[in-house]
This record gives sequence, C-alpha cells and structure tokens, in this order.
Amino acid sequence: MKMLHKHLNENLNYDGTPIEPAWALKEYSIKGSSIITWIGPMLIKKDKIIDYEDVDLEIKSDAMAHFIVEHFDCQPADLRMAYHRQRILVMILKDELSNWNISCIRKGDDLYINSAKLSVSIATVTPSSMKVHLGINIKNQGTPHDVETSSLMDNNQDMDMKSIIKLMEDTSKRYINEIYSIEEDIAKTRIF
Amino acid sequence: MKMLHKHLNENLNYDGTPIEPAWALKEYSIKGSSIITWIGPMLIKKDKIIDYEDVDLEIKSDAMAHFIVEHFDCQPADLRMAYHRQRILVMILKDELSNWNISCIRKGDDLYINSAKLSVSIATVTPSSMKVHLGINIKNQGTPHDVETSSLMDNNQDMDMKSIIKLMEDTSKRYINEIYSIEEDIAKTRIF
Amino acid sequence: MKMLHKHLNENLNYDGTPIEPAWALKEYSIKGSSIITWIGPMLIKKDKIIDYEDVDLEIKSDAMAHFIVEHFDCQPADLRMAYHRQRILVMILKDELSNWNISCIRKGDDLYINSAKLSVSIATVTPSSMKVHLGINIKNQGTPHDVETSSLMDNNQDMDMKSIIKLMEDTSKRYINEIYSIEEDIAKTRIF
Amino acid sequence: MKMLHKHLNENLNYDGTPIEPAWALKEYSIKGSSIITWIGPMLIKKDKIIDYEDVDLEIKSDAMAHFIVEHFDCQPADLRMAYHRQRILVMILKDELSNWNISCIRKGDDLYINSAKLSVSIATVTPSSMKVHLGINIKNQGTPHDVETSSLMDNNQDMDMKSIIKLMEDTSKRYINEIYSIEEDIAKTRIF
Amino acid sequence: MKMLHKHLNENLNYDGTPIEPAWALKEYSIKGSSIITWIGPMLIKKDKIIDYEDVDLEIKSDAMAHFIVEHFDCQPADLRMAYHRQRILVMILKDELSNWNISCIRKGDDLYINSAKLSVSIATVTPSSMKVHLGINIKNQGTPHDVETSSLMDNNQDMDMKSIIKLMEDTSKRYINEIYSIEEDIAKTRIF
Amino acid sequence: MKMLHKHLNENLNYDGTPIEPAWALKEYSIKGSSIITWIGPMLIKKDKIIDYEDVDLEIKSDAMAHFIVEHFDCQPADLRMAYHRQRILVMILKDELSNWNISCIRKGDDLYINSAKLSVSIATVTPSSMKVHLGINIKNQGTPHDVETSSLMDNNQDMDMKSIIKLMEDTSKRYINEIYSIEEDIAKTRIF
Repeated sequence: MKMLHKHLNENLNYDGTPIEPAWALKEYSIKGSSIITWIGPMLIKKDKIIDYEDVDLEIKSDAMAHFIVEHFDCQPADLRMAYHRQRILVMILKDELSNWNISCIRKGDDLYINSAKLSVSIATVTPSSMKVHLGINIKNQGTPHDVETSSLMDNNQDMDMKSIIKLMEDTSKRYINEIYSIEEDIAKTRIF
Repeated sequence: MKMLHKHLNENLNYDGTPIEPAWALKEYSIKGSSIITWIGPMLIKKDKIIDYEDVDLEIKSDAMAHFIVEHFDCQPADLRMAYHRQRILVMILKDELSNWNISCIRKGDDLYINSAKLSVSIATVTPSSMKVHLGINIKNQGTPHDVETSSLMDNNQDMDMKSIIKLMEDTSKRYINEIYSIEEDIAKTRIF
Repeated sequence: MKMLHKHLNENLNYDGTPIEPAWALKEYSIKGSSIITWIGPMLIKKDKIIDYEDVDLEIKSDAMAHFIVEHFDCQPADLRMAYHRQRILVMILKDELSNWNISCIRKGDDLYINSAKLSVSIATVTPSSMKVHLGINIKNQGTPHDVETSSLMDNNQDMDMKSIIKLMEDTSKRYINEIYSIEEDIAKTRIF
Repeated sequence: MKMLHKHLNENLNYDGTPIEPAWALKEYSIKGSSIITWIGPMLIKKDKIIDYEDVDLEIKSDAMAHFIVEHFDCQPADLRMAYHRQRILVMILKDELSNWNISCIRKGDDLYINSAKLSVSIATVTPSSMKVHLGINIKNQGTPHDVETSSLMDNNQDMDMKSIIKLMEDTSKRYINEIYSIEEDIAKTRIF
Repeated sequence: MKMLHKHLNENLNYDGTPIEPAWALKEYSIKGSSIITWIGPMLIKKDKIIDYEDVDLEIKSDAMAHFIVEHFDCQPADLRMAYHRQRILVMILKDELSNWNISCIRKGDDLYINSAKLSVSIATVTPSSMKVHLGINIKNQGTPHDVETSSLMDNNQDMDMKSIIKLMEDTSKRYINEIYSIEEDIAKTRIF
Repeated sequence: MKMLHKHLNENLNYDGTPIEPAWALKEYSIKGSSIITWIGPMLIKKDKIIDYEDVDLEIKSDAMAHFIVEHFDCQPADLRMAYHRQRILVMILKDELSNWNISCIRKGDDLYINSAKLSVSIATVTPSSMKVHLGINIKNQGTPHDVETSSLMDNNQDMDMKSIIKLMEDTSKRYINEIYSIEEDIAKTRIF
C-alpha cells in the first residue's frame, strides 16, 4: 500500500488526540500508512501527553504547522524504528527550511533557531502502528512563557500561509520518497 | 512498493537456483517483492535442495508450472511467515484448479489428485527476504519412479499451455491481492 | 505446549468479549494457545468492535457457529501473522464446507454463498497474544437488514446442530494440524 | 512440537559440526527443537570455531559430557535469546552438579571449580534456529596446556559414566521443563 | 545506556503500581533500563494483579525485599525474553542466598525453603518495555493463611536489614553484569 | 555497551572486506557496536560487492574518507533499521560538511555536489549485526571514468588531511550521540 500525504484545510487544534492509533482512519477515512498535515494551534490535554518528562509542562502554541505520521509496515510496531523515522522527518524538514533561508540547529528531535525552540516532536507506538507528531511554530504567540521560542514567520518575512503549506507538502513528499527508497535499497542488497 | 507478477516466456529448467535470494533481480532486473512464473522442466542439483528430508531424493519432472515468490516486506525475514504464505498460495491454487474441474486434496504444502502427487513446494529465507517455490506437474513424464504422480493435462483434456498460463496468472493475481488485503485489514484493526 | 480445541456446550452470546486477551483462561481455565468453538447468537457491544470501519454498523445474528483462536507462540505477537492465520482458518472452513456440498466464494476474510454474506471475522493482537474470531451464520434470522446474508441451514437441509458441531471440530482439528505442520516444515528447511 | 532429549551412546568427537544448523535432523533424523547429549572427546577444527576470540586457541579435551541444543520456536531466530537460554542451561547444570557435591563458580557461560575451568560453551544462530553447545570436562586429560582445567571425575570419585549420563539426563529434562514453564507463564500474564 | 541499580531507602508498599511501565521514571526520574530495590510490605490491589491465575488470591506480606526490573533494550518488547530474564534473576538470587547459607529449591520463578514459599515473581510487557517484579519474604508475618511460607530472617538468624540490603545489591549487580556479558558474547559470535 | 569510535591511522584499501561481520573485532579487537574511520583508496573485489545493481560496475577511488559502522543492539539484526541508520549517518555528514562550506544534495544514500557524485554507501546485515559503509571522495583521482565525481579537496581548498580527520570524528561522535539520544527517547515515551 502506497503511503499517502493529505493536507487538511481546517484550523484543527492539536490536543493530543491525533497521535492516537488509527486517528486518520477514524476521522478522515484514510486507511494505511499516511502523513497528515494542517495548520492550527496546539494545546495538549494533560492526559494526552506522551513524553513522561513533559507531564507537568504546558505544551502550547497559537499557530503551528503540524505533521502526523502513521506507519503500519513494521509488524509488530517498533518504537526504536519510530524514533529513527522521526529523526529522518526532522532532518528533512531542516533541509527544506534551508531552502527558505531559515537555518536551524537540530538536537535530537528538536529544531532551534539561535537557541530558540522552533519545534516539538514525539513518537509512540501501539502493537500495530508507529506514530510521529511534529509541530513547528508559525508565530511566536501563545508559546510557554518559560521557554524561548522561535517561529517560521519571525525568521522569514516572505513566509505566508501558502508558502508554509508548500513547505509541508515538500517535506511530506520527500519523507514518503525517503521511506520508499529505503524499501528499494533493501531489495538490492546482498546479505551474508 | 507494489508486488509484481511476471510470466517468463522461456523454457527454464528449475535447478534450485531460482529460490536463491534476489534471483529475480539478478536474472530479470525485477526489484522488490515479486512472483515469477514460467513453464519448464525441473531437475534440482543435489546441493541446491532446501528440504533436509529430500537430500537423497530425485526431484524432477519434464514439464511443470513454476511459481517463485520473494517477499521483502517483513524485516528481518521470518520463515514462519514464509510458510504461512506458502500455504495461502497453495490454497489459492487449489481453489483456482477447481475452476478447471481439477479437484485436489491438500496435505500441508502438497496437492494430490486421488493420492497421486501433483505438486512440490518449499519455502526458505535469508535475513532479508522470504522465498517460496511451488511447482505443479503439467505432464506425468519424467517424474520420479518411486512416487505416484499426477498432472494437470492428465486430469483435464482441455488444458493446453495457454490455459495453464491463465491458471498461473489468475493464481498469482489472487495471491498478490490476498497479501494486499491483509495489509489493508491490519490498518483497520483496533488493538488492545 | 500443544494447541487445544474445546467445544463449549452452552448458548453463549458473542458480545465482543471473547476476542479479549486470555478470555479462554479467565472464563474456562484453558491456558496456552487454543481454539474455542460454540453455537450462539452474536450481538456486539459498540465499544467492543475491533474493526474501525464497522463502528457504526450493527453486527448481529441469532445463531452462529463461533470460533475463537488465541496464539501465544509468536513473541511479540504480530498482527500480520494473525491475519495470515485468519485467512488459513477461513480457507480450511471453506474446504470443509465443500464436504457438506456448501460451495462458497471467499473474499479476504469473508465467505459468501451466491453473493450473500455467510460469515464475519476479525483478528487482533495484544503485545503477547494473537486472536481471531470467525462466526458463520447458522440461520438467517437476526442478521442486519441492510446486508444480504446466507446461512448453513438455508444451504443444506441436512445440516442439523450435530453436523454443525462436527463441522466445527473438523475445521478446528485441521487448523491445529496446519499450524503444527508449519512448525515441522520450519525444522526441515535449509536456509541461506 | 514438544522439545526432545536424546542421549547418544556413541563416542562422538565434537569437531564443531554439531553446532551447525539441523545437525540433529541430518545425522539422527530428529526434527524440531531438541537437546542431544553424548560423551566423547573434543577437538574443534579451526574453521568451525564460533567464538571470534578463540580462533587462535586450541579447544580440546579427551573426554567431555556434551550438550547440543537447537530451538526453532523463535522466528526469526534471536542470538540474544540463544545466549539467555545458554545461561539458563549452564545455571541448571551448576545446580545439578551441587547434587553431586560438586560446587562450581559461574562466570557468564563458564563454570569453574576453584578457578580451574570445567566447561566450554557457545551459542549461535541461523535465520531460523538457535544453537547452544555446552561441554564439561569428565577427565583432565587432553585439555590445553595453557589453561588450568578441572573435571567431574577429579572432583567426585563416585562419578562414573553411568552417573554422568544421569547428570546429563537430569539437566536436559530440567532445561526442557524450564523452557516449557516459561511458555506456560507467558499464557497466564496480563499485559499493559 | 548503562543499566542502573538504585536502592530506595523508604518503606514503600508494593501495591502493584511499580510493575507499570516507566514507574521508575515517573516516581524517581530514573530513565532507561534499571533495577530498583527496596524493603517494604506487599498488598496488591486486585485490579493490579498481573497473573490471571492469581486474581482471586490474596497476595501479601508484611516485609519483603522487592526488585523491580525494567528493560528497554529489546524493541518491540518481548514477554518471552522478559520471562527468561526473570528466571536468570531468580537463579542469581538463589545463588546469592547460598552465600548466606540459605538453601532454596527453585520451581520456575518461585523459590522454596523446605517446600515453604519464599518468593513471588511476575513479568509483563508493554510494547516498549519489559518488567519483572521479584519479592522475597523477610519475615513470615502477614503472608496468606492458606500458603505455607518461609522467610529470610527465619532461616538465617544473622540476617539483619543491612545484610538484606547487601544481598539485594549483590544480586542486582550480578544481574546487570549478566545482561551485559550476554551483550558482549553476542558481539564475539560467528553466525551461519 | 557503549558504542565506540576509532580512527585508524593507516592507509587501508577498502576492498569490501570491512563490511563483513565482526571485521572490527577480527582485525582490531574492537568488540561491540562501533564506528571505524580511516583514509585510504577504494578498489572493491567483484565478489565483495553488496549492491546487486553494482556487480558489473567498477567501484574505486584513489583517496576516500571511510566509515564502517556495526551495530549489535537489534537482535535479530534488521536490514530496514540498518538503512534508516545509514540515512541518518549520511544526513549528519551532509550537515557537518556545511560547516566546511561544502554544500551537498542528498538523494537516498548518495551525496552530490552540483550533480557530481561525492560518496558511495551501502548497508547490509547478518542475523546478528547491521553494517554500514560510507565513503567520501577526498580527491577526484582514480574514480570511474563513466561517472562524474566530486571530492572534498576540490570543493574546499582549506581541507587538508587534518581537517578531514576532524570531519570524520565530528560526524562519528554526532552519529553515536544520535543513536544514544534515540535510546533515551524510547525510555521517556508513554505508549498506548
């Protein structure tokens, strides 16, 4: 089954629900591996937080570019693989941002512009699927007061909503192609 | 990557080489999961025999319909899965044969017509791919003297080479669809 | 541990609970891989539905032949394997039905008689076990109004409760033998 | 398939061949998971050495109690699991030796009596099976000159060949039961 | 990441919560694979019981030495592996107890002194981690009336709290070294 | 076991041997997961080629910066994981090169400077370990005539051997930290 990218034209709040298994199927009838993108705020319900180190933190932003990835190809699902794919997604995004003259530093799954946090990300699994969320601040409004944050629009005046959607599409397509190219490489490899 | 079926229009002897990993890539530049079919004799070199219980047997036939399946989707490759898929392939073939009024009995991976052996099959793995061979006697010539064998043409006078190719194509397509439908079912399933 | 078959002589409603992990252990003290069969109605509680595409459907029937399979052999449990085994179970049942002159068409995990739906089936997993439910209509009563259904008794006048129990026993035994024969085949296979 | 123990009444040299996959099937027609024991010398051919750190060492002894274990239950085979089982086998043997008043120290997979090496052991895998070899010196003759070794007969005067066979049988049976009891425990466990 | 041992100097009741995933992280900010020990009572809430065969039993003791192990190295987590490690932990403990002149019999994951039960243990998994609990009676008080129990202090008059803590530390260190030595052995092994 | 980086100060030809399992152990007594780097030519023996699509190609260069990675953490080894890690290594290298004002384009596992090929890479597995080779042209001499190639020294005049070693060290350290950070993230993640 080919992995699908779909951009949602709705102002959906990221409350932590989209990282639940089969969210794309339940909400948008998208079956199989997929990457769903949209622009919207983030305010996560405390009981939806996936990172045990974040449970007492406020995780919020008024406007973010969101990516939700779900993979069904590895059975049983593998959290280690999920985090490798998350890193690859973040690295591709960093690459795409450089095309917009936005230069980031990556530490693990976080992107920074001049030490100000640009993104949030997490991966998780069920026994049958791997999920990744990646969110990038579009504006600096509504981010936590105790964290220095940066945003796409603050770092490139030319970035409007249309260009952000293009960034998300380019990133999603490259990510899908990357996973596909790995499958091709597997099939050409002599093993011992 | 979509699984591919290709029928070879050449009279290729099955000598045990086609079950080796990446045979379809090395010989026919077919990359990724595939099912390759052809009509030809079978005479396996002793050192190519996969079944440890068969190493002292003659495995041969003058004319067989051959299927070679290779799967790269499960990493690492899993011999248990390979044998489950082999069973599904044999069961689909049995079903297709009934459309040609050829009624078989299946025991494990063997098909019989009135207790005469119609087919041979084996599965194996490397760390990265799963392979299945399935061969069906087309004529009774050239089969081992100490085994009672049956064949497609002996059991249905109307079966010519064209209809055997159709049988192989129908079986291959249904097999590919079956594996595909399993992937779809995985993606619709709530787990605990 | 040998896989066990047990037929329950009780009119148990399939409400979705039996597909939960360790149901056979909790309710009937049957430990290890097993296939449990019984005859009874089906009316699934909405929150017990496993198929995300069925959550808004009525899934019901007044009298069904039920199979519940649980496997603990693959650790961690693998939903892809669970669906391969489900297919094998359905294919064996289709074969057994032909012995009762009931001729079915199979599409994925569904059996049809002349395009009328005979069966329902689903597979699922926990991290430690694989589960399959398969239910076959015995009578046509109580099935959903918006689906054309068929049933065992409507297609063979001679099928009484005793013969349906025999059908379930034969199917269960062949399924257990199939899984066992795969384990034997694994142990005879030369790998690369 | 139940795991089998078989004791060979032949003076077989351990040359490194028995740890190869399917050795029990090829040589003794024993199919499936098994533990094979015998008493014989050990002189390993250099190209059969499994431990990369031992390739320049002499590994030899004139009389050893040998255990060869093969497991087919985990697919694909897992070297980490193989070494866990090896440790369990060595620990059970240590326990059994204490019943013969032979008190050992275990370090990893080695047993020592007063810092003199009593045993050798290694595990390995193919894609489809896990193998373990464990050998215990019966006499001190023929062991390498540069290693201080100990032996069963040197530490208990009452140990004759008959009692050594009993030791091997008891150890093998307890090992088989241990693996079996783990399968039972898996099936009784609530998971999260 | 190196596996960590930490002894808690608090009289914590084992109510079944510590076997939940990431308990060490949530309660003690210990991230990664770890073994946590403490001395305290045990009274498990009924809905926290992991062993389906124990759900109607009282599981309690006034004073126990507790071990909670969590492993993140195998992804996805594997209940079979968890039970192999549990056995290894119990075997190491039995060995350490013999240094204190306490001689036990082990049956599966239970230790007995003269047929009186000394310990309780269970393993479980989530998709991402493996957990083991092992508890040893320090005193006989507060154990269930219908089970004959034994305890450390009843079998060795010299065992005080300090020596029990030493026992827990020695056992934990040996367990960590054991797992580490298996990783080293994996890396020295020629495979087929 | 902590993953190790070692730079070899010898002019070693990459002939295809270093990608074989346990090469670092056999040649340099480095046990466990490692990344070995050196500067030297590349001329691969035809029978050592891992990429089935390259078997008829000349793969050579007079001076390359070589990385050989081996991982033992995933058991059984997983070729899909190996290729994900290869991609991460190549992406980190691309990032490090930008610090030297060398701007690359990445396509799968290849780096290009203005459409001229800078690097070669492959991954492979045995049942117990994952291996990656990555080589970067230092000079353009000795590369195949039918491929347009680029090199480090041709694109940055300031790059001498010392700075190339620094590039290799920085890349290796960041890679090791990346894999380590993924292990940390696994341990902080709530799963479903």
